[in-house]
Amino acid sequence: MTDLTLLDVTAAAAALRAGDCTASELLQAYLARIDQYEPRLNAFITLTAAAAETQAQAADTRLRAGRPLSPLDGVPVALKDNIDVAGVVTSNGMQRHVVAAADAPAAHRLRAAGAVLLGKLNLHEGALGATTDNPHHGRTHNPWAHDHTPGGSSGGSGAAVAARLCAAALGTDTLGSVRVPAAYCGVAGLKATTGLISTRGVMPLSFGLDHVGPLARSVRDLALLTTVLAGFDPASPESLPAPDSWTAGGGAPQSPAGLRIGVLANFAVGETTPAASDGFAAALQRLRRLGAEIVELALPGYEPGRMRLAGVLISEAEAAFALGEELQTSPEMASAAFRDMVAFGRDAPAWKLVRAQRALAEAGVACRALFDEVDLLASPTTPQAAFRFDAPVPDSQADFTALANIARCPAVSLPSGLTPDGLPLGLQLMAPPFAEARLLGAAAAFEADAALALTPPAYA
Amino acid sequence: MTDLTLLDVTAAAAALRAGDCTASELLQAYLARIDQYEPRLNAFITLTAAAAETQAQAADTRLRAGRPLSPLDGVPVALKDNIDVAGVVTSNGMQRHVVAAADAPAAHRLRAAGAVLLGKLNLHEGALGATTDNPHHGRTHNPWAHDHTPGGSSGGSGAAVAARLCAAALGTDTLGSVRVPAAYCGVAGLKATTGLISTRGVMPLSFGLDHVGPLARSVRDLALLTTVLAGFDPASPESLPAPDSWTAGGGAPQSPAGLRIGVLANFAVGETTPAASDGFAAALQRLRRLGAEIVELALPGYEPGRMRLAGVLISEAEAAFALGEELQTSPEMASAAFRDMVAFGRDAPAWKLVRAQRALAEAGVACRALFDEVDLLASPTTPQAAFRFDAPVPDSQADFTALANIARCPAVSLPSGLTPDGLPLGLQLMAPPFAEARLLGAAAAFEADAALALTPPAYA
Repeated sequence: MTDLTLLDVTAAAAALRAGDCTASELLQAYLARIDQYEPRLNAFITLTAAAAETQAQAADTRLRAGRPLSPLDGVPVALKDNIDVAGVVTSNGMQRHVVAAADAPAAHRLRAAGAVLLGKLNLHEGALGATTDNPHHGRTHNPWAHDHTPGGSSGGSGAAVAARLCAAALGTDTLGSVRVPAAYCGVAGLKATTGLISTRGVMPLSFGLDHVGPLARSVRDLALLTTVLAGFDPASPESLPAPDSWTAGGGAPQSPAGLRIGVLANFAVGETTPAASDGFAAALQRLRRLGAEIVELALPGYEPGRMRLAGVLISEAEAAFALGEELQTSPEMASAAFRDMVAFGRDAPAWKLVRAQRALAEAGVACRALFDEVDLLASPTTPQAAFRFDAPVPDSQADFTALANIARCPAVSLPSGLTPDGLPLGLQLMAPPFAEARLLGAAAAFEADAALALTPPAYA
Repeated sequence: MTDLTLLDVTAAAAALRAGDCTASELLQAYLARIDQYEPRLNAFITLTAAAAETQAQAADTRLRAGRPLSPLDGVPVALKDNIDVAGVVTSNGMQRHVVAAADAPAAHRLRAAGAVLLGKLNLHEGALGATTDNPHHGRTHNPWAHDHTPGGSSGGSGAAVAARLCAAALGTDTLGSVRVPAAYCGVAGLKATTGLISTRGVMPLSFGLDHVGPLARSVRDLALLTTVLAGFDPASPESLPAPDSWTAGGGAPQSPAGLRIGVLANFAVGETTPAASDGFAAALQRLRRLGAEIVELALPGYEPGRMRLAGVLISEAEAAFALGEELQTSPEMASAAFRDMVAFGRDAPAWKLVRAQRALAEAGVACRALFDEVDLLASPTTPQAAFRFDAPVPDSQADFTALANIARCPAVSLPSGLTPDGLPLGLQLMAPPFAEARLLGAAAAFEADAALALTPPAYA
């Protein structure tokens, strides 16, 4: 039998339905890889192998009966450890020991679709940062370079998917925390339209900017997972009903021929490394060759650095409200650095928080207006590839990704190639709200044309 | 000729189209009443009679040609003086002398529909309060009792409509500022679904809670005006596209037979005066007689006082951001009391603002969930009728109205009768988002059945 972990979610699901393998076999293949590689990678905070085995057996019963719950039935998925899974601790990447009483709606939707919940993945402490150099749970390593960050805050999700310790993972994304690790680890990640996937049951960082999103090894997997995850949650103030016509699409390549793809002239390209810049130029060239028209645009008044600071202030102030009581009762649950950031947000004068909220609201309007001119926006996902844990953390990590959170737009990161040093680079595509099908169709066309077979050598 | 100002907007518009009167005659009828009554009422801050005359002549040209711009063509409407009208000062009820460069979208929509813009109406200073006892522009009096408040903050709008100094008016409503003066002055007022009517070009109090809304002498007028005012404004972060199926309805009575109308048990009824309580009981009796089923409901955890304080904090903090620069440059533009309120919001710690925002977001979710049980919610508009300017201002004025701002739901206030002292009382009906047609249909049925002919004796 070939290594079942080489199958993406879609292929694994097809194999399960065809009876080419069982969910239990698929799970065992992943558990074997976890045994082998997790000590080196450190992607998991909690592995729920026993519960997963029970779930896999139940999936096999359904599959044998020809009654799978969904195309995801029997596929092992892991979740970032700030998303509640009933009966399992949600650490939030901290010294937090609270067992979740119920599944978050996102976890519940996976479970109801038959996914096998494999465990909880490491993240940057409190999801507030992007290296996943976690003081409580250790570093998650980049599968492509052991001494490099996998990015964050969903670093465990990016690393586990890239190293094939799970078929797919959920991350969360407040300013880029799904897409940054997707880019650094050479996998695909989607932040869907704001409000499409419920964020209830997720440790809040910023109520308005937080998203739950999938990381996977193909664009079609993102489409499949998004179809399962999306759904109006009337109990969440942030949830929005999608238009009746909404669909994530099937994730099949849809030629971008005729699409107008905008590139923002005033993005922080000055800070973009030559490797990231060259990679992006090559990606644009590929899009052009596929028939897309590349259009240079400006987003007047948009200063990525200022917007990032506004987003961070909002996150710190909202985290101060959401975590304040726990942090006061058990200050030792967080590092001093984390407590300082939250204290900064807690004590900032209210008018500065309003100024930050307003800056993002107005930038969002301006950004959405760009889609009068273009069908998609393209940028590098990050201005740099993954960096060494001992290197200074660049401020600009989330400068390209934050715009989609600000504008409430769907954005995907997909692998676009490797740097000369052999580190993955990500291409970010962004679409107007609820245009996931267009976004993922174009991303799949890029993916098919690039035909990268991105396997981290140390996790082959 | 009968007094043309006795016609409501709908009847006046019909008379104009039928050629029974001209827009210029209609305008002159209003200007004559303004000459006679404005010195006593003090509803206007700026009267734009000359511009209105030009607009009325243009309307007459269109009407004579049989090409009215809309059913509103030629009807005189006045606007609260926190809404920009091009070329006219927007005082915001302060010592503010800034001439608006452009119409606010709400004003623009009126103008584009052919409405004759009569002038700018007094309001509570900075729209932050509900008596319209304005330190810069004087008190607007209640047409029903000269020494009583007309309510606020759209007090000029309520008084001018009740005293027939305009056919209809625009107000703004952050926690109840359209509906409170509508109730106190015995007219109808609507706060539509949040995002339906653009608030751009309105002096901000709270970006998320502010609404522009019409005050008029009949429910059908509210429907007509809302149809003109509603429309997605892509330049406003708060604007929302209405569902394709949305309509304000025609404002014709639609029997509430079979409708389930909820009454909230835990509203602040303890503070409701006997007169308001009796009036509300009689209104419920009328609704029952019309066939509605009255259902008692609870909104668990909803404390009107706490929600009001949260709404006020948000307003003060957002006003501090929006007005801060002007207030710093020209502190004399505002009273010390206003400056103190804004300073309180400016300097509050950010986490308290987040707590307030979150409390409202969660209460909104809980409130909207009530519409799984009922078609409409009913309450008194205010816990009391208008009170004397020299009486203490009750804290509870907006306790019934704020819920609709919090829940982003449409809510109408319509006259339900008079107190034994001869002061108007308002009935508030509330509907789920975008259910304006249901709301106004039921309100019109109530109005038709009540058949009140509410003319303030001193302005007959």
